[in-house]
Amino acid sequence: MFHRKPASLPERVGFFLVPQFAMLSFASALEPLRSANRLSGRSLYSWHILSKDGGPVLASNGIPMVPEASIEQVPPLDALIVCAGIDAHLYEDRAVFAWLRRMARRPIEIGAISLGAYVLARAGLLDGYRCTLHWENLSGFTEAFPELEVTSELFEIDRDRFTCSGGIAALDLMLQLIQREHGLDLAAAVSEQFIHERIRDRHDRQRMALPARLGVRHPKLLSVVKRMEETLEEPVSCADLAEGVKLSGRQLERLFRKYLGCTPTRYYLDLRLKHARLLLLQTDMSVLDVALAAGFVSASHFSKCYREQFGKTPRGERGGGRG
Amino acid sequence: MFHRKPASLPERVGFFLVPQFAMLSFASALEPLRSANRLSGRSLYSWHILSKDGGPVLASNGIPMVPEASIEQVPPLDALIVCAGIDAHLYEDRAVFAWLRRMARRPIEIGAISLGAYVLARAGLLDGYRCTLHWENLSGFTEAFPELEVTSELFEIDRDRFTCSGGIAALDLMLQLIQREHGLDLAAAVSEQFIHERIRDRHDRQRMALPARLGVRHPKLLSVVKRMEETLEEPVSCADLAEGVKLSGRQLERLFRKYLGCTPTRYYLDLRLKHARLLLLQTDMSVLDVALAAGFVSASHFSKCYREQFGKTPRGERGGGRG
Repeated sequence: MFHRKPASLPERVGFFLVPQFAMLSFASALEPLRSANRLSGRSLYSWHILSKDGGPVLASNGIPMVPEASIEQVPPLDALIVCAGIDAHLYEDRAVFAWLRRMARRPIEIGAISLGAYVLARAGLLDGYRCTLHWENLSGFTEAFPELEVTSELFEIDRDRFTCSGGIAALDLMLQLIQREHGLDLAAAVSEQFIHERIRDRHDRQRMALPARLGVRHPKLLSVVKRMEETLEEPVSCADLAEGVKLSGRQLERLFRKYLGCTPTRYYLDLRLKHARLLLLQTDMSVLDVALAAGFVSASHFSKCYREQFGKTPRGERGGGRG
Repeated sequence: MFHRKPASLPERVGFFLVPQFAMLSFASALEPLRSANRLSGRSLYSWHILSKDGGPVLASNGIPMVPEASIEQVPPLDALIVCAGIDAHLYEDRAVFAWLRRMARRPIEIGAISLGAYVLARAGLLDGYRCTLHWENLSGFTEAFPELEVTSELFEIDRDRFTCSGGIAALDLMLQLIQREHGLDLAAAVSEQFIHERIRDRHDRQRMALPARLGVRHPKLLSVVKRMEETLEEPVSCADLAEGVKLSGRQLERLFRKYLGCTPTRYYLDLRLKHARLLLLQTDMSVLDVALAAGFVSASHFSKCYREQFGKTPRGERGGGRG
């Protein structure tokens, strides 16, 4: 794969499916391999779908996927990719973690897509490696594994580990693989088969550019929103925000109302509450710590704002199940 | 869907799987619906996987997909999407075609992704509609259905029919749907979940831009390659090509050798032979007609060049099975 050349072709790639895996990132990782074979007319890659017990696994869209083998009957592999999705941060399975550690002692590259990094991290397989995962879970993940080197890249390749943010970024990751092993011509041809606009590299952003995300192109407005997103933990005053783009407070307010339909204060608060919600759902941080991380000075003010926004308290958001 | 608003939510979308369907375009069409539900916290969409007999269907990557129902037990639907892939141009199933026509008499929107347009066209459901399909099959499709209005757009929405080129363009199609029905905010949020760079509209190109495809940025070279691609049927002389970008024949030759590793003549011939190969594989055109469509003046010269390039004759390419 990325780290060492396979001794022979086809290169054998295993996909381990965790319940509630994300089907689109799984297909985005697997399908380029099929297409590379078809377009080259050669068996460059083979793929093997695995589940813990060999039985069907439900994707997060509720569709069952039928694997080829259980983890007890794994065929020889050059690489193994852990596919996970919704609730991967809650996934706990010692037998699977032990199996992954056994696999890692073989000359094999191990990767994860979407939220598969949670599974690898729990199994201890990311210790000392640079890694990434889906942007929505970056805060929660770094909170849960403060000792790991986590980046917000589209994907990370570090020696015999690779991790990918998920969705169609898995397509970019595999196109990089095909390009390294079999050249740009084949990678570009595979990319075109899937109507992909361009092959992105690991430094490309995970999230859409702000103008596309907001449907707004006003440069001063975009600049203020960007600054808000970067200062959720220690909010800046609206006067400061306005001054930063050489506008008066009133001008800034008009700009927000016109393009985003609310005041700057309201917009900023929304961002901070959404950030808090992700932390509540994805981490074991106390409500007070979440409040502080989202720029609130007290848990009670945080709870009040939270309830107004989401119709339930921070504790209620966790369903009483955790924390 | 695109044409009329559903009477109630969730909007019910059926996916009919044809054997050897393309898993990535299927997942790209379905997963945005799941994500829209999750992000909005509402049941905006439901999905139902169907196969002819209700049994598992093998995707073109060999993985079985287990449907929810057969075409005899279809739940009420607002839309039905035909998913097809490899060899869809050979798909012939009168029972399925008759079922599709019965479905089309209901107040339901019918779509196709990747090569699903072949199935709809065979069933007569694209007569009088504008449509598109995967760029690789455009020539073969227009040859097989000369009376249809076929475009090379990313996707086409024409009243109660929609067609999509496939791959991750199906994601763009569904993001358009979510945007129309539930606003840009939700569509952009779904797009970001799948690490999609931007929501493309139907006029975006299916194929990668030439610079990305060739890994070359030299403007004169790109301009010549573009002109070659547009004149496969009636090739222009190399002198003309050179003159068009104000170069001498020798300069053009140096440029091609430096960046593409071959002469302009060789490159042009490659393009024409690849075009011919697609026509041979996807249509019933005679070898002579294919030769003419690829800019050859005689079938014998065409056959000779073809054998040199692909190691078999045009007739051999068809495996004796057809034409």
